[in-house]
Amino acid sequence: MLTASICTIGDEILIGQIIDTNSSKISQELNKLGIKVRYMFSIGDDTNEIIFNLERCLKETDIVIVTGGLGPTKDDITKDALCKLSGSKGYKESPEQMEIIRTILTRRSIEISDINRAQAFVPEKCKVIQNRLGTAPCMQFLFSKKEKYGHKAVLYSLPGVPFEAIGALGDVILDIRENFDIDEIKHKTIATFGIPESTLAKKIEKWEEALPEYIKLAYLPNPTLGVRLRLSSYGRSNVTFEPQIEKLKGLLGDTIYGEGDDTLQAVIGRMLREKGKNSPSGKTLTLSAAESCTGGRISELITSVPGCSEYYMGSVTSYSNEAKINILGVSAEIIKKYGAVSSNCVEAMALGVRKIMDTDYSVATSGIAGPDGGTSSKPVGMAWLAVASKNPQTGNIKVISQQVNFASNRAINIERFASYALNLLRKEISYTNITEK
Amino acid sequence: MLTASICTIGDEILIGQIIDTNSSKISQELNKLGIKVRYMFSIGDDTNEIIFNLERCLKETDIVIVTGGLGPTKDDITKDALCKLSGSKGYKESPEQMEIIRTILTRRSIEISDINRAQAFVPEKCKVIQNRLGTAPCMQFLFSKKEKYGHKAVLYSLPGVPFEAIGALGDVILDIRENFDIDEIKHKTIATFGIPESTLAKKIEKWEEALPEYIKLAYLPNPTLGVRLRLSSYGRSNVTFEPQIEKLKGLLGDTIYGEGDDTLQAVIGRMLREKGKNSPSGKTLTLSAAESCTGGRISELITSVPGCSEYYMGSVTSYSNEAKINILGVSAEIIKKYGAVSSNCVEAMALGVRKIMDTDYSVATSGIAGPDGGTSSKPVGMAWLAVASKNPQTGNIKVISQQVNFASNRAINIERFASYALNLLRKEISYTNITEK
Repeated sequence: MLTASICTIGDEILIGQIIDTNSSKISQELNKLGIKVRYMFSIGDDTNEIIFNLERCLKETDIVIVTGGLGPTKDDITKDALCKLSGSKGYKESPEQMEIIRTILTRRSIEISDINRAQAFVPEKCKVIQNRLGTAPCMQFLFSKKEKYGHKAVLYSLPGVPFEAIGALGDVILDIRENFDIDEIKHKTIATFGIPESTLAKKIEKWEEALPEYIKLAYLPNPTLGVRLRLSSYGRSNVTFEPQIEKLKGLLGDTIYGEGDDTLQAVIGRMLREKGKNSPSGKTLTLSAAESCTGGRISELITSVPGCSEYYMGSVTSYSNEAKINILGVSAEIIKKYGAVSSNCVEAMALGVRKIMDTDYSVATSGIAGPDGGTSSKPVGMAWLAVASKNPQTGNIKVISQQVNFASNRAINIERFASYALNLLRKEISYTNITEK
Repeated sequence: MLTASICTIGDEILIGQIIDTNSSKISQELNKLGIKVRYMFSIGDDTNEIIFNLERCLKETDIVIVTGGLGPTKDDITKDALCKLSGSKGYKESPEQMEIIRTILTRRSIEISDINRAQAFVPEKCKVIQNRLGTAPCMQFLFSKKEKYGHKAVLYSLPGVPFEAIGALGDVILDIRENFDIDEIKHKTIATFGIPESTLAKKIEKWEEALPEYIKLAYLPNPTLGVRLRLSSYGRSNVTFEPQIEKLKGLLGDTIYGEGDDTLQAVIGRMLREKGKNSPSGKTLTLSAAESCTGGRISELITSVPGCSEYYMGSVTSYSNEAKINILGVSAEIIKKYGAVSSNCVEAMALGVRKIMDTDYSVATSGIAGPDGGTSSKPVGMAWLAVASKNPQTGNIKVISQQVNFASNRAINIERFASYALNLLRKEISYTNITEK
């Protein structure tokens, strides 16, 4: 099995100022190719540390991916280290990268300085992989089996800026494929929500055991995305996962909400478009939200999807009882009798926001995020979620609600309340029965 | 200078499923003690890799902090590795950790299994640092100068769950102080917002040059927190930073918003309480928000502060023009004449939400988050921000607005629009002149 190591260079990581997110993205991509990441590490802007550690990586793994340390001011350290490490005799200019530097700086009306010009110079033994998103070039260094590491090894040096590093990753993957025998690999990921990993594993135990030996299963749990199941096959060109996925759908039903990189909010947007097409008006169905304990998080998730303004009309964060009463039209009696954290109140919130925003669907939350507050009957971590809807054919208004119970951490509670509310909404939209025209 | 290394153990990190945030927090704390973190790294659940890498850390650094690999199911690998590494002959029970395990599981009504009981067993040469937040014990291994590494070295093994690891960090720092000569260290951090790092550096250049040699300055830039300036003194007990900070305040004025771990939203909450105390009513002043392009992010930031319900009444995310008109009372003419992204519209939004929520202050945003949309005069990355206020003494209503221009990344734009809007609000609150009663 091919192995890789990932190295991040930069003092700002070692003093805890920046959290390294590049390594995680890179390892996901390598993992998809069937390449095992043996270790990741971060070191400072120090030539000796860089050479010492990268030598070790080249000895121990086939592929080494380095990010960071290439900014115009730190250029010399990392490049010098790579120049020495690769046995390059000097530098050469990359006309392609120079052209990109010129284009980027001209667009920003910045005059090209000597520092910028120096960025287009790379160690003589390096092959340039173009970075179209920034001024620092991506570099590839190839060490043949005959050279000092005793095996073929390739080192890639990418910029530290996340969107530049991730942006260059596609070309790096192509280059890895050119240099190594990578098995034909296929993946299919199925996204589930609302079922704990252990329960899920139990539920699909027999299905998992019956998988053909060339199909591997991975569990990928995530607090906002739920548990995703990834099927992978290596070394076969004509594999189809369809029969397995059909069986899985039979076992898991509507806990499955999507595929690949789907999120609850993206799926909801898609469903509103699709259901709308078949509705009497033929128009995309619309959505609004009323948030209390989630404080804006649901709205933020919905609006993280580009193009959401087609279906999302907006929300009311009714943090005070007055806002619930005066803006959403929740009756003061309900709050007095049942409290703001109750099925009665959250259903009235959902109905209220749907009405004032005039949408087909709405979602609402009211709960105790903590860390303080709460009572024995309504403890921190408890929330009521509701979804209201107007049937696109009959015009009937319906509202449902659900109680959830989590723990004491405020930030985690807000995150979970929001995801569970979106999941309740997703299910309700999927149940909406529209007779095709 | 004392050096440290930080190691994360867990396959879930190497396949990119989890981003390691512990190392960053740990390095921040070590950095405050004047300890230099030489490297951070992540390895898989593999005994040989663990021993090989930790041996290297113990050789090369004085302090080694390990997180992860201690869950009940993975217990044996990491503990076995640490048992071998430390030359322990076997395991011993930690009665204190057993008691904690019993308490935690009883509270959750879970019966104590053999797996749980095994968690209280630790390598014989280890000193237990109690983990009060979880079932896995924190372990300390001390290697004296005479032992194989040729210098005194201490290894700490903490759980991987972030709140448990961070929760134990205080006791780890105490233990480090007991085992090493740590200089008397003092820090003071000043938080600024709205001034780029390079401009800031230029502005305080002379002040920085005039700092006494025992005071060191660090720039800590962060997209939502602004640039924080940290002053540190090492090895002196009677240091005060006050004279320096007074001068800094003179130079930077109201770009300084707080100290230490302050956030814009926490400072705003504090100001509303303080200003309210001196107002005619003596009550905490109140706040509401109207969001378009920020989609709920401002509300989410405000409600991330525990206890915010005392002053935060809520928000309207008016994503559609209808919501702006029907709920916030923005006139249709304004939108027709100037567009939704205009000073006229955003000021009407701020005035509207202040009115319907009946608050002392309100903040509003309208802009083009992207990635698509926008025109040459209103490009992606442009937004209008507004703050409306009711003077607590005169009752006069006032509204101000500001244009900001960023780049093309949707998520980054939303984050910046929200932070800049909070900063505009903060300044406006600070300008509110209340004559003391």
